[in-house]
Amino acid sequence: MRNVKLTLEYDGTDFSGSQLQANGRTVQGELEKAIAKLIGMSEGERCIVTLAGRTDSGVHAKGQVANFRTDSLHSLNTFRRGLNALLPFDLAVCQVEEVEESFHARFDATERVYHYQIINRSARSPLVRRFAHFVAEPLTVGAMNEATQKLVGTHDFASFAGDGWGVGNNEASDEKGKFGTIRRIHQAICWQEPDSPIITLELRGNAFLPHMVRNIVGTLLMVGVGRLTLAEFEGILAACNRRRAGPTAPAVGLCLVKVRYDKIVF
Amino acid sequence: MRNVKLTLEYDGTDFSGSQLQANGRTVQGELEKAIAKLIGMSEGERCIVTLAGRTDSGVHAKGQVANFRTDSLHSLNTFRRGLNALLPFDLAVCQVEEVEESFHARFDATERVYHYQIINRSARSPLVRRFAHFVAEPLTVGAMNEATQKLVGTHDFASFAGDGWGVGNNEASDEKGKFGTIRRIHQAICWQEPDSPIITLELRGNAFLPHMVRNIVGTLLMVGVGRLTLAEFEGILAACNRRRAGPTAPAVGLCLVKVRYDKIVF
Repeated sequence: MRNVKLTLEYDGTDFSGSQLQANGRTVQGELEKAIAKLIGMSEGERCIVTLAGRTDSGVHAKGQVANFRTDSLHSLNTFRRGLNALLPFDLAVCQVEEVEESFHARFDATERVYHYQIINRSARSPLVRRFAHFVAEPLTVGAMNEATQKLVGTHDFASFAGDGWGVGNNEASDEKGKFGTIRRIHQAICWQEPDSPIITLELRGNAFLPHMVRNIVGTLLMVGVGRLTLAEFEGILAACNRRRAGPTAPAVGLCLVKVRYDKIVF
Repeated sequence: MRNVKLTLEYDGTDFSGSQLQANGRTVQGELEKAIAKLIGMSEGERCIVTLAGRTDSGVHAKGQVANFRTDSLHSLNTFRRGLNALLPFDLAVCQVEEVEESFHARFDATERVYHYQIINRSARSPLVRRFAHFVAEPLTVGAMNEATQKLVGTHDFASFAGDGWGVGNNEASDEKGKFGTIRRIHQAICWQEPDSPIITLELRGNAFLPHMVRNIVGTLLMVGVGRLTLAEFEGILAACNRRRAGPTAPAVGLCLVKVRYDKIVF
């Protein structure tokens, strides 16, 4: 069996998330359909695709990674071109590689890089309405970046864990026994380009809890408008209590930018 | 009468262009409807909005300018907030100013700045599919920029004039008698950011012929893939013959970035 690794880009707006669902249009569902068609599987057969990271409805990806196993003899170029011809406009395969038998898109990932974009100006923006969260109240980016730095390192992120955490048979619960709500953030930065209303938060970490980035953003926004001090933000992280943190920021601003598989020096 | 200047942003994908039409959803039409509602005009009355530049269906704007006259006593803030509440998601008012009686959004403009974005990589991009023209064949940006420099100055741009030029009662024909197909490009540059597949062409000029930027891009792409030399590109500009130039590039990559009204030192 060949093991094929795909690098994916998608506009998450019209997907019900990345993970296969009985009802709803998903990234995994569209990919599995396109692969089955391309390699000519018979009806009822299924080619199981594994995704590196689970993204919610509305969350985008520039560098999501997937893998699947196949006996097909298609060249890698045929896979890329064929899949891009079969996939819908909001999902594309940017890169196709053949990887060793043991490669697992999720378990082998050593770092996930997320960006969250906020557009901070008085008027909403038609051009970035699908890709940035609109905040009209002026934000102090310096204060937000100071708070962001407090996230770097190995922490119990329970204060930023989504409601779905550990409930039901999702992948999060598989890992709960092993690490609980402890995750490691390698690098974090929040910045604004000169002459741009776009503020970007970049978080690089080994793994993320469900809704973790969006819950962090909701709390950072409270720092940005001056409703929370840096010390209070630190207190929220230390409290390990979801009720202490801010609301979940909307999915629209979130993008899975990159998944890495090399050794991370931390 | 007050004279109100608006700075507009829109996603042109779902508009039939900027200019009012009997049928079809237009930027001018949506604006006039929203203004009439906000200032409480009676049915049948019309508030005429003048736009600085005509944009085709699919062409975007970050800094289109419009003006209209009104007796309404609303504050400028009320205009901005009210219009953004009434306008559809793909059209927004970024700035509202009160200007002198004589200000005319189109006739007073001294410079229009257009960007054309090309995404140059092997796979199409779901994230920029509404904002960049996808070209899979590798492009030599250096050669494209050299050709771009030949456009700077006052030239007869007949080789890049769209089919609609001078036909019927459009605004272009008003100006035909005055300047014909002669226009002045103040600055021109074509570049690619490091580590990005996006190539941007920026053209700054006093005015543009219908389809002029898209016809230039169609010809520059032939330079980029090596089908035209720099000398041949210059020959096409000098020929003043539309049949010599390349095809019209798609609207998707084009954006009216800024309209200026100050004196341009050229």
